Amino acid sequence: MRETGRSGCPINLAVEIIGDRWSLLILRDMIFAGKRSYNQLLDGDERIATNILRDRLNYLVKHGLLKKSPDPDQPRRKNYRLTARSISLVPLLVHLGFWGQQWLPASPKLRRRAKELFAGGPALWDEIMAGLREDRASRAAGDGAR
Amino acid sequence: MRETGRSGCPINLAVEIIGDRWSLLILRDMIFAGKRSYNQLLDGDERIATNILRDRLNYLVKHGLLKKSPDPDQPRRKNYRLTARSISLVPLLVHLGFWGQQWLPASPKLRRRAKELFAGGPALWDEIMAGLREDRASRAAGDGAR
Repeated sequence: MRETGRSGCPINLAVEIIGDRWSLLILRDMIFAGKRSYNQLLDGDERIATNILRDRLNYLVKHGLLKKSPDPDQPRRKNYRLTARSISLVPLLVHLGFWGQQWLPASPKLRRRAKELFAGGPALWDEIMAGLREDRASRAAGDGAR
Repeated sequence: MRETGRSGCPINLAVEIIGDRWSLLILRDMIFAGKRSYNQLLDGDERIATNILRDRLNYLVKHGLLKKSPDPDQPRRKNYRLTARSISLVPLLVHLGFWGQQWLPASPKLRRRAKELFAGGPALWDEIMAGLREDRASRAAGDGAR
């Protein structure tokens, strides 16, 4: 999936960046499961291939949705962190999950979770985004201290 | 883009079906621009290739997001119409557009449009969905009368 600036429609621009199943799943894992490292992201139920994971991570960094930052425990190893741009995708991912649980054969447990997240509405999504922003800020401060 | 049922996560199931830029642009054109025929869909700013358009249309029909129906003027020609499943994607597409206008270099006119659609909130989205449902029902009645 590569963007080409095919039109100035905001929906087109959005799907040129994130209209790709693997990018959306990477963001899902970082937003809802708190994953941060390449190995954590590799280890998911959907079994993403290593070359696709590397490609999408680079692409998301290039487009300002992720930032590389040193792993707190092994500073020479890089982790990824969310940016304001990707954190603002929370409502979109909640809608995706709600649509999936409504129409597709989702697992009962995750179906309930998607329903709860959607029912929480904007107040809950704002809370999730605020939590992610805080996490991001404290990590950035940690980088600075290093 | 092919689904494989890689996990029961509702977000994964959703992106297996619609996590593809061209599918989302086809749905955008049908929802917001009222396009219904293959030729109308082919004629877009993003210049979709004929083979991709055919492939995605078949895929969307297969997964219950579109239905083929006879063209009112040329009954032997088939058009496409939205289903309850695809109409329920309106809020998701509005969010996509809002995110695009916030973060990406969208055209000023379409940027304003995306902002208005988003600012209208659930009440406006419900109204759009109701209009589409009505349109669908009247087309279905037309099919029946033929």
